Parts: sequence; structure tokens; C-alpha cells
Amino acid sequence: MNKRKKATIHDIASKLGITASTVSRALNNHPRISDATKKLVNKTAKDINYQPNNIAAALRNGRSRLIGIIVPTANRNFFSSVVRGIEEIANQLNYKVIISQSYENFEQEVQIVDTLLSARVDGIIMSIGKNTEDFEHLERIVEKSIPLVLFDRITDDVEVNQVVIDDYLGAYKTVEHLIENGYKKIAHFTNPRKINIYSERLRGYTDALRDNGIPFDKNLVIESNMQLEDGQKSVLKMLDERLEFDAIFSSSDYAAMGALQMLKEKEISVPEEVGLAGFGNEPFTSFTTPSLTTVDQVSIPMGNVAAELFFELLKADPKKYVPQKTVLKPDLIIRESSTRKVSQPIEK
Amino acid sequence: MNKRKKATIHDIASKLGITASTVSRALNNHPRISDATKKLVNKTAKDINYQPNNIAAALRNGRSRLIGIIVPTANRNFFSSVVRGIEEIANQLNYKVIISQSYENFEQEVQIVDTLLSARVDGIIMSIGKNTEDFEHLERIVEKSIPLVLFDRITDDVEVNQVVIDDYLGAYKTVEHLIENGYKKIAHFTNPRKINIYSERLRGYTDALRDNGIPFDKNLVIESNMQLEDGQKSVLKMLDERLEFDAIFSSSDYAAMGALQMLKEKEISVPEEVGLAGFGNEPFTSFTTPSLTTVDQVSIPMGNVAAELFFELLKADPKKYVPQKTVLKPDLIIRESSTRKVSQPIEK
Repeated sequence: MNKRKKATIHDIASKLGITASTVSRALNNHPRISDATKKLVNKTAKDINYQPNNIAAALRNGRSRLIGIIVPTANRNFFSSVVRGIEEIANQLNYKVIISQSYENFEQEVQIVDTLLSARVDGIIMSIGKNTEDFEHLERIVEKSIPLVLFDRITDDVEVNQVVIDDYLGAYKTVEHLIENGYKKIAHFTNPRKINIYSERLRGYTDALRDNGIPFDKNLVIESNMQLEDGQKSVLKMLDERLEFDAIFSSSDYAAMGALQMLKEKEISVPEEVGLAGFGNEPFTSFTTPSLTTVDQVSIPMGNVAAELFFELLKADPKKYVPQKTVLKPDLIIRESSTRKVSQPIEK
Repeated sequence: MNKRKKATIHDIASKLGITASTVSRALNNHPRISDATKKLVNKTAKDINYQPNNIAAALRNGRSRLIGIIVPTANRNFFSSVVRGIEEIANQLNYKVIISQSYENFEQEVQIVDTLLSARVDGIIMSIGKNTEDFEHLERIVEKSIPLVLFDRITDDVEVNQVVIDDYLGAYKTVEHLIENGYKKIAHFTNPRKINIYSERLRGYTDALRDNGIPFDKNLVIESNMQLEDGQKSVLKMLDERLEFDAIFSSSDYAAMGALQMLKEKEISVPEEVGLAGFGNEPFTSFTTPSLTTVDQVSIPMGNVAAELFFELLKADPKKYVPQKTVLKPDLIIRESSTRKVSQPIEK
């Protein structure tokens, strides 16, 4: 009861007549804060014996036993399975998780980082949004020595623990499988935002074509947001533009599903005329007729590894800890939509 | 800075040499705590001027601007859409939500109530688990004057705001639609746990049969946990036992999907030989061949209403507030799996 009251950023702020958020940014060396202010803030911090890690230190006692998880959306099977994988490990250690959704919205993502911190989580495990190109909100977590682990959608701009699958390998194996089934004009559905997962899958696609002597045709790379309707529209676009294609490798199961619907509507048979493969192994891919070939992202193990890295970090000395990147191997799930009885492509 | 330190339950606990959780239970009149202890705790509370609502009062300042949501699982489209509906309203008022999953596990559900409260949420919006039969954890929230709203899976044992759909009406309309399409031996898949949603759907099923002069056959009511595999097994069971049925109304889309798979495997045609309808309007129901008739649970509006009731409660005087129950009308979505061209059933 006799502890000396610890100095806070609010004390610095009121001493200098500036806002607490300016103090926080100055302490975190934010580029928008002038050097003069930074100098003043740092001097004042020293004067009043402000310890920048006191919040983090309190959290490190393990008092909250709470992990904050940020996902673009919790109703994708992949994300919910990763969460399940995290919970498997967390529950064993008597930790609970709370989830917040960014909906791929950058502002929302930045705000929920603060939300989770104010909810006193011990740290954060997250997958970044498609539109996130500025990582200051992540740096802020790291600089406070609050454990942060990124999974699936990551950035190399921030030095933190990361867990990904080998998206390149997943794409490469899928395209190779399509080629083995006699498909030669393979289109690729991708996202214009080149976050790691999409750029790696595109690279796997182009390399698999090249290694099998099939020329790359940039017209067959169709960019969209890759929801169900985007898959429908992308097929329509290819048909309207009279592009020749005999297979589609979609970076998303949802767009693959949309493609299947449109191909059916246009009475183009799958897999006989057009082969089709998605990515993600969403449950519906096994329900469709024909069932969809896809790539399983080993989501439960990914969650397990993310949680293990999190607890390792929680115990470690942040100054000595060297961030790790774990790369898991994905599984190609071969189903009806890409398997042709003939080894030669059907001439149209 | 000169505020008098408020008494906490920890002060009572240390005065009496018992745990804080015993104090909390005693204050909340928990049945496992002896009357003697309750008397002692209440006397001490009065002596040191403990105010049981101080936590709630602090929260009521709106300081955290955080709503805790508890769902059985976030990857069901229904639950994630309700969350979306809640967020639509919450974001307008500059509130954020955090989600925790109970996985239908009672212990987990009780623990995450505490987790969310310790994360300083302003209140909780939740749907209870299938196995929850004791509601003391909900009473604890209400007694602390922390806003609580229940949706979809509710209990009448606790007096709180509730939002449900008219499950009875949804079931009644579905069965009536099957009868109109010439089906006469309609099986019903349900859950043995008689939480409100399943008992209401069963009631809608039996009433629709009765009102249409079709005798109720209890052998055609098949109980299971209603996952995908349960739907497969239930069809197998009916075939093995040589039960006569020409339609299935499943209380879950997942079990309906499993039924469809098994009927296909056994070369029983849907909708010609057996009509099929689910409940929930999960996205995959429109992807299947044939597409599945189902009941849409107006999840976004349900989330909107739940959030509105929550904010109403947050502003209200808890002593004067009368809890409300809002009942929304579900939509029957008629698709291929239940629509026969013939008006007479096919003779097998």
C-alpha cells in the first residue's frame, strides 16, 4: 500500500501542456513529431523517472491471462481454426482469448489494437488486413515490449515472431497438379493488394508454369477482391474478352466457388472443359458438385505454433529475444474439380 | 487525487480471512455459501462502507466503450452476422466489440464471463451454450447492474433483454411448405437438449403436421448433436430401421447437408424421392446440388436490435428498467431441395 506512485505519460503530458498521445508518439520516435518535442519529452520523462515499460511490466506478471486476437473476419474457417489452435494451447496454460475483427479496414485495425491493450491483454496474436500498408500500430506494440505474433498475413517491416504456410509451395503444387491433368491455359485469380500471401501464390503459379515449359500470359492473371461475386465476374470477363483458358487456379475458395457457379450457368463442364482449384479448404469446398480441389492451410497447427511462440515471448527477455519465423507446409487436397480421366486436354 | 479509497471485496475477504470469490458469492447470495458466512460478509460490507455497484458504476461512465460478446462459435455464419449487426450500431457510437467463444462448454462459458468483465467491458451480449442449464453466471452480471442482452439462445430464468426469432413460426412455415409440395412422412432432426430454439422448432413441426391432418410419429423425430456427420448417421439410422419417410426438416443446416450427402450416396433423389429443408441459411446451403431450402434467421437485424437494447440499458436506471423481449420474424428461403414439380408424392 506504500508503493510510490509511478509516473505516467499523462504526467509528462500535463507538465508540457501537450496531449498524452503526442507524448506516446514522441517516446516511440514517431516521424510526425518534431525533434524538438521528442527531445523535450525524453528529458521530462527522465526528470520524473518515467519508466516506459511499466505497463508492459505489469502485464508481464501474467495478471490478465488474456490473449487478444485480431483477424480480418472470424467467420472464415481458416481464421476460426487458427483461433481454435491458439485456444488449445492457451487453455492448457489457463489463458483465455478475446477476438476482434478488423474487416480488412485499416482504421479499424489500428483502433482495435488500442481496444485490446485497454482490455489489458497480455499480448496480441494477429493477421493483418489486406489494406494495411503502414505498420506503426504494430511497432507501438513491440516498443512497449508487449508480445506480438503475426500469422498468415504478415509483414517483414516489423521484427516479430511470425507463422506462415509456404504459400509459394501450395500454389506451385496446385498448378503442377493442373498441368499433370492436361490443363495448359491456366488462369490465376489474385488480389491487387500484394500482401505476402497473394504475391507468394502468384510467384508459385508463374514458376510452376515456367518449370513446365508453359508460357506466362499476363492476361490470364485476373485481379479482384476475390469474394464469391468476384469469381463469377472474373469468369464472365474472361468469356466476354474471349480469352482462351482451360483451368483456373484461384487464390481464394470463395472466388473459385463463384467461378464454378458461373461456369455451370454457361454450361461449361468442370473438370472436363475447365479445371478448377481454390485455396483455403473452406468446408463448402467438399460440398459442391463437383467437389473443389484446394489447398489446406494447416490452420490448427498454425494456431498451435502461434500460441507457442507467444508464450515463449511472454517468458523471454524482450531485449535478448530474437524473433522467429516458422513456415508450415500446406497440403494440396485433390478433389473432382481438377481431375480428368484423359491425360490430353479436350479440344474445344 | 484526493478521493477516498473505495472498499473492495478484497478488503472484506482479508478482514474475514476468506477468499474474494467466497465474498463475491456470499454477496450474490450463492446457494453453496452458508447463511452464517453470508450474514458475516454482509455485516462487514456495511461496516467498511462497501458499495457493491462501484465496479458497475465505474463502467457506466462509458470509460471502456467496449462490448463483450459471447457466442458458442464465431465461425457459424449466423453468429458472425449477428456480431456484424451489433458492430454496425456499436461503431456508430464509437464502441468496439470483443468476442469470446464458449464452444458449447458450460465451464468455459462461466469463465469467459469473468474474462470479459476483467477486460473491463461495459456489458455483455450473448447467446448461451447448448449445455447451459445453470444461470448463476448470468445472474451475477445482472446483480452487478452490468448490462446484459441475450440473443437467439436465451433463458427465461434470468430477467434480461432478449432478442429471438420466432423459431416456432420458422418451423411451422417450413413444414407447411413441405406438405404443400406433397410430402407426408416428414422426419424432424432435433437436439436432445431442449434449449428454447430446438423446443420451439419441434413445436412448430408438430403443430404444422396436426393442423394439416398428418399424424405425429415420434419415431420420425431423430435426436443428435446435429453436426454434418450426425445428419449422415441419422439418415443411415432411418434407412437401417426401414422407417418410411419422404422428407426431412432438420433444425440445423449442417445436419441437413449431411443428410443430403448420405441420400446421394444411397442414390435417393432429392427433391423427387425425399424433400429436404434445413434451418439457419448458412452460405453453403445455396452452393449445394440441389440447393437447400432453409430458414433465414435475420441475423443482421437481430444484431442491430441486440445492440440497441444494450445501449438503452446502458443509459437506463437499472432499478427502474423493465427488460424487453423482441421477437423477429424469420424468412423461409425456398430452394430446390424441397420443390417438386408434381403435387402428388411419388410412390416408391
